Amino acid sequence: MAERERAEGPATQVPRNTNLRKLHAGYLFPEINRRREAHLLKSPQAKLINLGPGDTTEPIPPVICAAMELKAKALSTSLGYTGYGFEPGLLSLRSAIAHKLYSSLDIKPTEIFVSDGAKCDIARLQLLFGPKVSVAVQDPCFPVYVDTSVIVGQTGGFLDHLHQYNNVAYMRCTPENSFFPDLSLIPRTDIIFFCSPSNPTGVAASKTQLERLVGFAKANGSIIVYDSAYAMYISDGSPKSIYEIPGAREVAVEISSFSKCAGFAGVRLGWTIVPEDLRYSDGSPVIDDCRRIMATCFGGASNIAQAGGIACLSMEGLIAMHEVMAFYKENAQILLKTFISLGFKAYGGADAPYVWVKFEGRTSWDAFSEVLENVNVVTAPGSGFGPAGEGFLRVSAFAHREDIIEVSNRLKAFYTSSVNQGTQAFGI
Amino acid sequence: MAERERAEGPATQVPRNTNLRKLHAGYLFPEINRRREAHLLKSPQAKLINLGPGDTTEPIPPVICAAMELKAKALSTSLGYTGYGFEPGLLSLRSAIAHKLYSSLDIKPTEIFVSDGAKCDIARLQLLFGPKVSVAVQDPCFPVYVDTSVIVGQTGGFLDHLHQYNNVAYMRCTPENSFFPDLSLIPRTDIIFFCSPSNPTGVAASKTQLERLVGFAKANGSIIVYDSAYAMYISDGSPKSIYEIPGAREVAVEISSFSKCAGFAGVRLGWTIVPEDLRYSDGSPVIDDCRRIMATCFGGASNIAQAGGIACLSMEGLIAMHEVMAFYKENAQILLKTFISLGFKAYGGADAPYVWVKFEGRTSWDAFSEVLENVNVVTAPGSGFGPAGEGFLRVSAFAHREDIIEVSNRLKAFYTSSVNQGTQAFGI
Repeated sequence: MAERERAEGPATQVPRNTNLRKLHAGYLFPEINRRREAHLLKSPQAKLINLGPGDTTEPIPPVICAAMELKAKALSTSLGYTGYGFEPGLLSLRSAIAHKLYSSLDIKPTEIFVSDGAKCDIARLQLLFGPKVSVAVQDPCFPVYVDTSVIVGQTGGFLDHLHQYNNVAYMRCTPENSFFPDLSLIPRTDIIFFCSPSNPTGVAASKTQLERLVGFAKANGSIIVYDSAYAMYISDGSPKSIYEIPGAREVAVEISSFSKCAGFAGVRLGWTIVPEDLRYSDGSPVIDDCRRIMATCFGGASNIAQAGGIACLSMEGLIAMHEVMAFYKENAQILLKTFISLGFKAYGGADAPYVWVKFEGRTSWDAFSEVLENVNVVTAPGSGFGPAGEGFLRVSAFAHREDIIEVSNRLKAFYTSSVNQGTQAFGI
Repeated sequence: MAERERAEGPATQVPRNTNLRKLHAGYLFPEINRRREAHLLKSPQAKLINLGPGDTTEPIPPVICAAMELKAKALSTSLGYTGYGFEPGLLSLRSAIAHKLYSSLDIKPTEIFVSDGAKCDIARLQLLFGPKVSVAVQDPCFPVYVDTSVIVGQTGGFLDHLHQYNNVAYMRCTPENSFFPDLSLIPRTDIIFFCSPSNPTGVAASKTQLERLVGFAKANGSIIVYDSAYAMYISDGSPKSIYEIPGAREVAVEISSFSKCAGFAGVRLGWTIVPEDLRYSDGSPVIDDCRRIMATCFGGASNIAQAGGIACLSMEGLIAMHEVMAFYKENAQILLKTFISLGFKAYGGADAPYVWVKFEGRTSWDAFSEVLENVNVVTAPGSGFGPAGEGFLRVSAFAHREDIIEVSNRLKAFYTSSVNQGTQAFGI
């Protein structure tokens, strides 16, 4: 008895954060990994192909890596060494982002905060907004918006029967509304998270839709947190930035990233734009608090990653990035066509590296297991992205071409046998 | 009128975070920079030497940079490319930290969370603890502990007459108590921030002192957040880790960094240790919540920086790092001896790259201006680190040798003229 107590040690008297206690189950991707490991234990010979986490697979273009090598080497020399950088990033990188990615949109370099990635910026924005704001999210959406809202205390508890948190407005985005919410049904909130092209559905919002969103935010005095992490994949003319919509500077911040366009998922580089025009209800500029949060809670993005970011935005870098994105989009088209040819209803895949597939009559986790166990492919269950994602799988196009072709062949082999067909025979 | 409204744009109806409104004035270092710029406007010819921000100046040893170059190059190849890493870091790096820096201390690699730096980890720990905990800090201390406490809502407002926040326990560390607080005067708090060697005083706590601190935390059921960012500078036998104290695993997390030992201030790499034995009052392990925070609010340290971290901990890397630290400590000794020779009371500088100097009869900002305007040296005013820092300056030893010698000569030239002497003639 004494020994057991000693082994566990006495607890402190520090109360556990009640906000963390509210967090429901595991974060989506650890749970996917857990089930993948369990499958591999059962079927150790399985040649799994992982289209789950949306993790980039293709090398970073050499012109970009060369710039990072050069910076790493320079750090060993007296002339090239640099210590702390200004937390919001090198002015040269902020200028390159402003001029190459927002050239016609009147974004000042000083309105751009360079960071170590969009996920990290979402957490810092939540620290900025604090516990008292109310939030709305697309449903389905990237789980980090809601989870960070829970962590800072903006939400109520998890409602098991609804699969959602109390005090969060879930804006349903389904095939029935072309994946754009019916705003007449959405209550006013302080913050509206909106991602286009959407992760997970892969669908980009049109200019008309975003005009409605900005109008809705203006009418409600809300702030849109616009996530454009996949915007460079857009090729159908849809806006790549919320600032293409007149008036957005007064109601929106935008977060974005080099992860998916340049393969920087592991290098870590992103940015957030906070326009000077954006103000709280007391009239004070949001950008002032953002500067303070960045200076206090962040140490700047790695100087080597920033050198890579500058190279990404050179003429050669931009061309090379677009070649890699075109490759992933070809992957997405192969997946999309495969699912459609098999009778599935499938979406996205044109302006984004994700395909969103409906599995009629099955829950997302059932569909996940069906594909995992029969096709040996890891996907991401749609319900992990919100209640409106139930019945869908997100299939990532981030993979080597031979794996995409293999997935396509396996899907065809399994789902063309009559009992397994996507939309038809299931439920018999 | 209409035009002016249009120029400013309408404000949103989102309330400003009341916690951010509480934050007093600017963060210390932006204010230092503002005053430096003002001095340069008045005296554009001044050859300023900056011993203010504690920013590393010497190149990173080539053996470490070579590893980062290699990783940057590998990212352009199919074989060497890696996307998302596990957020808590490469297991090889976590193992190297456990085995090279905590070899006799029973720290498991899985208890180590690799990060983009100690400042960022402090902010994430505050998200972890949430708004309901009470905090104590050394006074003076690194301003980020208190500022992040304010941001997450743990404190009351700033009390102008006391130069401190309400609901924060300030543990006075002065020459009178050998820079270790009289714990009998300190109220119980949930969290105790403690840094050794202390930034700003440069003084390392002894084993006996840390045993008292751990005993105090145990008696109160508190959690110590132990900042060992400068621990590798210790050479007098004082503990380099809180885990050298028996029982610390049950009451302490430790944050640390490659910034000051390897010159990674701009590369960004640090770590936090959360022992499995550390538990909240409800018995649940703190490490579980830490895993969740890292997965949700963080994307991992840059893979290139992590490759550098592994090289830091190779035999060659460790030797090279210690050579650079020895160089900075020689700088510190030059500064310390200069101030003492001029009649100042000066502390630190033996186990840390900072010297802490008392300016009798002057406020810290007055002393800051005196040194800036007469000696053209930027320092950091002690009062910026807490009310008990009033009357002191922190002088950083992070500089090229010729600059340190020049500072020493300028100080001697100015302060040996009788009216200016440190402790003697002032006030006449």
